[in-house]
Amino acid sequence: MGRIEARLSELGIELPAPFEAPEGITFRFETVRIDDGLAYISGHGPTAGAETLIAGKVGDSVSPEQAAAAARLTGLAILASLRVALGDLDRVESWVKALGMVNCAPDFNATPAVINGFSELLLEVWGESGRHARSAIGVAELPFDWPVEVEAIARLSDD
Amino acid sequence: MGRIEARLSELGIELPAPFEAPEGITFRFETVRIDDGLAYISGHGPTAGAETLIAGKVGDSVSPEQAAAAARLTGLAILASLRVALGDLDRVESWVKALGMVNCAPDFNATPAVINGFSELLLEVWGESGRHARSAIGVAELPFDWPVEVEAIARLSDD
Amino acid sequence: MGRIEARLSELGIELPAPFEAPEGITFRFETVRIDDGLAYISGHGPTAGAETLIAGKVGDSVSPEQAAAAARLTGLAILASLRVALGDLDRVESWVKALGMVNCAPDFNATPAVINGFSELLLEVWGESGRHARSAIGVAELPFDWPVEVEAIARLSDD
Repeated sequence: MGRIEARLSELGIELPAPFEAPEGITFRFETVRIDDGLAYISGHGPTAGAETLIAGKVGDSVSPEQAAAAARLTGLAILASLRVALGDLDRVESWVKALGMVNCAPDFNATPAVINGFSELLLEVWGESGRHARSAIGVAELPFDWPVEVEAIARLSDD
Repeated sequence: MGRIEARLSELGIELPAPFEAPEGITFRFETVRIDDGLAYISGHGPTAGAETLIAGKVGDSVSPEQAAAAARLTGLAILASLRVALGDLDRVESWVKALGMVNCAPDFNATPAVINGFSELLLEVWGESGRHARSAIGVAELPFDWPVEVEAIARLSDD
Repeated sequence: MGRIEARLSELGIELPAPFEAPEGITFRFETVRIDDGLAYISGHGPTAGAETLIAGKVGDSVSPEQAAAAARLTGLAILASLRVALGDLDRVESWVKALGMVNCAPDFNATPAVINGFSELLLEVWGESGRHARSAIGVAELPFDWPVEVEAIARLSDD
C-alpha cells in the first residue's frame, strides 16, 4: 500500500466512486489532464460516481457547515479521480493551487470558511506538501446544483 | 497550408476576425500570453472582431442550444487570437485546460452541456490532443453581456 | 534598493501591510505558492493587513470608478504578499495571467474597465514584462464583500 493510501486509511477516509456523467449527459472533458508534470484537475463537486451527495444554495437550503462538509466531499471526489488518472496517489508530490466556487444564496459571502473544508483535507493528508494558493468565490450557479465546486492543480513526482 | 488550417478547411470552419476592443474601451491585457511553452488565453466570448455575435442570459433570452453555439463561436474566437499570436496554429500541440463561464439566468445550471460547444470544437480539430480538463460554472455577469466566456491554456510544440 | 522597489518609490507607491486573516477567521491557504518558477497568487482584494478598504457591490454602493481604484488596491495587496513570499520583488521577472472577479450588482457588466485598474498597475511597474492574459468576470459574491478579487500567476527569475 502506498504512503498516501496508508495515510487515508489511518485517517479513516474512504474515497467515493470516481466522478462520472449522470445518465443523459455527455462529458466532453477529462476529469484530470496531465501536462509537463502538473495534473490539471477539472471542476469537481460533492459526488459519489454520478450521484450528487449534497445540492442547493449555501446560505439558503445548505448551511455553511453543510457546505464545508460538501467542500471536503469535493476533495474526496478529486482524490478518487486522481487515483484513476495516476494509478497511485503517491505520484502527487505537492499541491499548487485551487479555485473554490460556492453556489451562494444572495448575501452569503463567507466563502473562505466553506472552502476550508477542501483545503483542510489536503493538509491532513499531505501535510506541508498539501499547502496551496487558493481563491474562494461566490458564483451564481453550479452544475447539478452543487453547493461547492473546486478545480485544482497538483505537482507530480518525476518518477 | 498547415495541418490545423487544413483540418479547419476540411470541416468547413472559417475563423472570425480576431477579438479587439469595441470603440471607447481600452484593453489592458493580451489576448494570448506565452510563458515557457504554454499559451495562456484570456477570456474570450462569441465575437467577430469587436462585435459580439450573441448576447444575453442563458435560460432567459438565450436558449441552451444558442448558448452551446455561442460556446463554439467562443472557441473560434480563441483560435483566431491564437493564429495571430502564434502565426501558425500547428504550434498548438495539445490542450491543457479551460474555464468555461456561463452567464446564467436564475435557476439555469445546465452549464456542462453549454460549454460542450467549446470542448467539442477542440476535439473535432485536434482529436485526442484536444482533450482538456475543464470547469463549467454559472456567473452573475459577463462583459459585453456575452452568454459564454472561456479562458484556456494550450501546450505549444518546441519548434 | 531593488529595481522594482525603486520603481514603486518613483511612482510614489507605498505597499499596504500584507493580507492576513481577520479575527475569527483561519486561512487554510498560502497567499503565494511557488512551483517550478511560477508564483501562484491566491485571490486578493483591496486590503491593508486584515482590513478591507472598500466593500460593496459594483454598480450599486460602489461606482465603477471606485471599483477600478479597488482593483488597483488589490494589485498593491498582491505586491505586498509577493514581497513577503519572495523577499525581493525583483524576483518577479514577468507576469503571466490574472483572473479578475467583480462583485456585480444586477445588470452591471463593465468588468474589463474595472479590472484595468489592476492591469495598469502591473504595466506601470513592470512595463512590457507586466503584460498578461486576463479574464474579467462578474461573480455573485466575494469574501468580505470585496468589490473586486484578483488571482494571478507570475514568472520568477532563475536566480
